Amino acid sequence: MLTTPSIAAHSATTPLAPLAIARRAVGPQDVQIDIDYCGICHTDLHVAKNDWGRSVYPIVPGHEIVGRVRAVGAQVTRFAPGQAVAVGCFVGSCGTCSSCADHMEQYCLNGYTLTYGSPSADPGGYTQGGYSKCIVVGQDFVLSLPDGLDAASAAPLLCAGITSYSPLRHWGIGPGMTVGVIGLGGLGHMGIKLAHAMGAKTVMITTSPGKAADALRLGANEVLISTDEQAMLAMANQFDFLLNTIPVSHDFNAYMSLLKVDGTMCIVGAIGPNAPLNTRPMILGRRNIAGSLVGGIQETQEMLEFCAAHGIVSDIELIKATDINLAYERMQKNDVKYRFVIDMASLV
Amino acid sequence: MLTTPSIAAHSATTPLAPLAIARRAVGPQDVQIDIDYCGICHTDLHVAKNDWGRSVYPIVPGHEIVGRVRAVGAQVTRFAPGQAVAVGCFVGSCGTCSSCADHMEQYCLNGYTLTYGSPSADPGGYTQGGYSKCIVVGQDFVLSLPDGLDAASAAPLLCAGITSYSPLRHWGIGPGMTVGVIGLGGLGHMGIKLAHAMGAKTVMITTSPGKAADALRLGANEVLISTDEQAMLAMANQFDFLLNTIPVSHDFNAYMSLLKVDGTMCIVGAIGPNAPLNTRPMILGRRNIAGSLVGGIQETQEMLEFCAAHGIVSDIELIKATDINLAYERMQKNDVKYRFVIDMASLV
Repeated sequence: MLTTPSIAAHSATTPLAPLAIARRAVGPQDVQIDIDYCGICHTDLHVAKNDWGRSVYPIVPGHEIVGRVRAVGAQVTRFAPGQAVAVGCFVGSCGTCSSCADHMEQYCLNGYTLTYGSPSADPGGYTQGGYSKCIVVGQDFVLSLPDGLDAASAAPLLCAGITSYSPLRHWGIGPGMTVGVIGLGGLGHMGIKLAHAMGAKTVMITTSPGKAADALRLGANEVLISTDEQAMLAMANQFDFLLNTIPVSHDFNAYMSLLKVDGTMCIVGAIGPNAPLNTRPMILGRRNIAGSLVGGIQETQEMLEFCAAHGIVSDIELIKATDINLAYERMQKNDVKYRFVIDMASLV
Repeated sequence: MLTTPSIAAHSATTPLAPLAIARRAVGPQDVQIDIDYCGICHTDLHVAKNDWGRSVYPIVPGHEIVGRVRAVGAQVTRFAPGQAVAVGCFVGSCGTCSSCADHMEQYCLNGYTLTYGSPSADPGGYTQGGYSKCIVVGQDFVLSLPDGLDAASAAPLLCAGITSYSPLRHWGIGPGMTVGVIGLGGLGHMGIKLAHAMGAKTVMITTSPGKAADALRLGANEVLISTDEQAMLAMANQFDFLLNTIPVSHDFNAYMSLLKVDGTMCIVGAIGPNAPLNTRPMILGRRNIAGSLVGGIQETQEMLEFCAAHGIVSDIELIKATDINLAYERMQKNDVKYRFVIDMASLV
């Protein structure tokens, strides 16, 4: 058991504050990690505020974790002290179901263990996340951080990066294809970089003409303003794939006609009820809507290698631990390009 | 030009009545068909009543057509007088777009020509359908009716049959897979027969316990009552594919959790706005929703051969032309097992 400084939400109404929290002892399969950086995901805010009604306080958010190995258990073979490592959105799964057998732990049929907020045998009865100096994670859920990636800017790859990468890979995105990325935030800016690096013609689809210049800088070949009906009509039947990163409930229908026959729009942001679905464009063009959740451990490691090979990291604003409540306020106003990352050296 | 007895809707408020209607002369690529039987599809009723606001009267419905060749044009090579033939939902497409090149005329990017109600060079300026003694169709859109299929019972294969067959084939249904057919009507009863014949474990999903016995008779291995929450929960993550044949706007969300990871629910009935879509089960299991529209000409021929090989036809009620308005009334109450077919010999 270790007692390390963390930043925890104590109730739905109190802000995040430093807390000395006990970590579990390092078991034979465990890797103890000194955390250098942790990205801030919109999920963290939802959980800190108990938006989904399932938060158990105190809770330490954070699932975009980058650090270095401090110690390893007796049976750990793949990691050694000093090694640069990372941890993403989950730290356990059943290991026996068909999804786990297929390296898709994120779809574990018996329920994965989230990096924070999941019931566990850890002190306090729940996993606690990366807004902390330290975390202890079973070796099967620890990623190796490739050389050449800036550690702070790599942190958001563990959620925003893999959430975009996994569907692009699953639907076979590559040269000769046209991909639309809907929404330019943490996920969308990664989607543009990744689809572009995979060789697809990449189109930023946004309601905000003011985002066009940045989208082009990030790698988009074109920008499509979704409120421009003529422009939307001109792009009908042009897209093989749409990565929909809009984080709030919205109307999917306007986008469906952009897809080619057999094209797919994949939802990675707006979880929950959305607008009534009009099946007309789906039936008339055998178009698909799907969802996708982060990625498996093997795929996340592949994503990190891909990013290292292509020089891809997140655009970030590095903040001190004391600025986190301000960061949450700004994130609610979409005022971040494109991800806040906490410098954990600032947590004392 | 031929003038033949047809059954036409004359306005939104008058019932269908006999009408002598001019057919186009038999051009060099044309096949003139004496119609023996024509199935009654729910679409016919929508168009006769102008439910979609696009009907131009007088209009002769009917796109489940079976008959015999009377005459062929000079350049027709694949058909000869006396041959048993069939015509489905469309009689023309551009022939040049990517969909047509891929034998998916139903997704023609330049607009297909429907069997009835589409603008055309035919007398009256619109195509007219199969509630008629005769039809003239270009040879590329005429199907050969295989030996061994009862002609009257085969008529509904041309719409209800192919609408179920095409998605089952597209999504690769076969042995080892579990398919749910949602809704037991004209489409659903074909879906059960076809999925069963393709070797899948086939489950009828319905709100009506009273339909269970018939579903099992048609080939379902099991029946799942969708209003039984415990039964639905027990079948979560069990289905590779769901064929949703419900013909009216409804809530898709209850069905999504039945799908395995990467499973697809394909909508073939409810075209237009439906209930708000909850993306949670889609994101948490990479589940898909898609639409599908009838099938291409080559695929429709393949479906007819498949049905002949497996002894599959529609369950029908054969009616006289004079009973068509009554049939429409009964169809609106779902009082048909499972498709009305007009015996065209009764039209004088």
